[in-house]
Amino acid sequence: MAKYSKIPEATVRRLSNYLKCLDELESKNEKVVSSATLAAMCNVNPAQVRKDFAYFGEFGVRGMGYRIKDLKNHIKDILGINREWRIAVVGIGNLGSAILVYKDFLKQNYKIVAAFDIDPVGVTGRISERLGKPVEILHVDSLKEVVKQRNIEIGIITVPPQEAQKVADLLVEAEVKGILNLSPVPVRAPEHVKIRNLFFTSALDSLVYYLSK
Amino acid sequence: MAKYSKIPEATVRRLSNYLKCLDELESKNEKVVSSATLAAMCNVNPAQVRKDFAYFGEFGVRGMGYRIKDLKNHIKDILGINREWRIAVVGIGNLGSAILVYKDFLKQNYKIVAAFDIDPVGVTGRISERLGKPVEILHVDSLKEVVKQRNIEIGIITVPPQEAQKVADLLVEAEVKGILNLSPVPVRAPEHVKIRNLFFTSALDSLVYYLSK
Repeated sequence: MAKYSKIPEATVRRLSNYLKCLDELESKNEKVVSSATLAAMCNVNPAQVRKDFAYFGEFGVRGMGYRIKDLKNHIKDILGINREWRIAVVGIGNLGSAILVYKDFLKQNYKIVAAFDIDPVGVTGRISERLGKPVEILHVDSLKEVVKQRNIEIGIITVPPQEAQKVADLLVEAEVKGILNLSPVPVRAPEHVKIRNLFFTSALDSLVYYLSK
Repeated sequence: MAKYSKIPEATVRRLSNYLKCLDELESKNEKVVSSATLAAMCNVNPAQVRKDFAYFGEFGVRGMGYRIKDLKNHIKDILGINREWRIAVVGIGNLGSAILVYKDFLKQNYKIVAAFDIDPVGVTGRISERLGKPVEILHVDSLKEVVKQRNIEIGIITVPPQEAQKVADLLVEAEVKGILNLSPVPVRAPEHVKIRNLFFTSALDSLVYYLSK
């Protein structure tokens, strides 16, 4: 992956968004897309799209645009999502349940292979009913063991804020490679474990910034 | 706000993250923070922090760092969250319920003043029980009227993917200024309405990109 190592974070985000738009085009049986069309779909300008795609060298077809299938493969290759990633979700409340049924994970090679809670017995029946299918919820005490057994590389944190760092520490101990934290407080990990803190307030902040201008 | 109008999106995101970390420091009764400490908390380098803060001119105290209270006010001022923003949530399933009880919205002046669903009668009792408090869920047919009555400026979309664009159109018609879309498909709006599509897969993509390197 060395050839791609200089891509800035904002570009990574846009690449990921292009992927969503390409999925949508593909679902409409489109085969080819111009940078102008993709730009309009993704709310960026066409020059930006072409600049972003320059990271993989020239491969658009002159006067025709990009082949959607090729473009998707290139982007997935850059992002590292051309293989399965195995995921655990920790904390099966409202948000954890939403994550368990989030429609797009599987499409993108993200596979949730374990769900943990502090109260698996209390939660299992209720959540299975809510999700309309039986779900296995494990006690968080078994996290370290299960993460290793099931080759889990990523943990998603959906516990209440006061438990978030504790769960992050557990995931680090279980040797996951990355953590996506959806609880409203930042969590930390040693440098060899990557963290993404995703706050809904931050998404609103960035929206409001543009509304205020 | 004109003086701040050139701030890049990545900076806006970081400013929002600094705010979270400053909240955390404040909750521990800290009064002052160095750029090094803040950088470590937010997983960025100290030079980046100082560069980001250069947007509001010089105001750190030499050899001492930044006053947390002042820094928070500056950031809120830049982002436009120094006043209340009134929000509607549309689609009260698992994710919508999680948003209704998300702990940090109120702290940041984000006030959810209406919740809509296609099946308010079916949903109300169940959700109230789940959230541990009575919640008023309105029929989505009343959205336009209620958005105007309650001066709602932002809509959060938490409906299933096949309904997302329809709800976005409704929100545009109701004259909201901005939309945060949490459904897994991109939605569009005319240029005068700002959209943020927040995909959980994108958060994973950006995490996995760094894991793959």
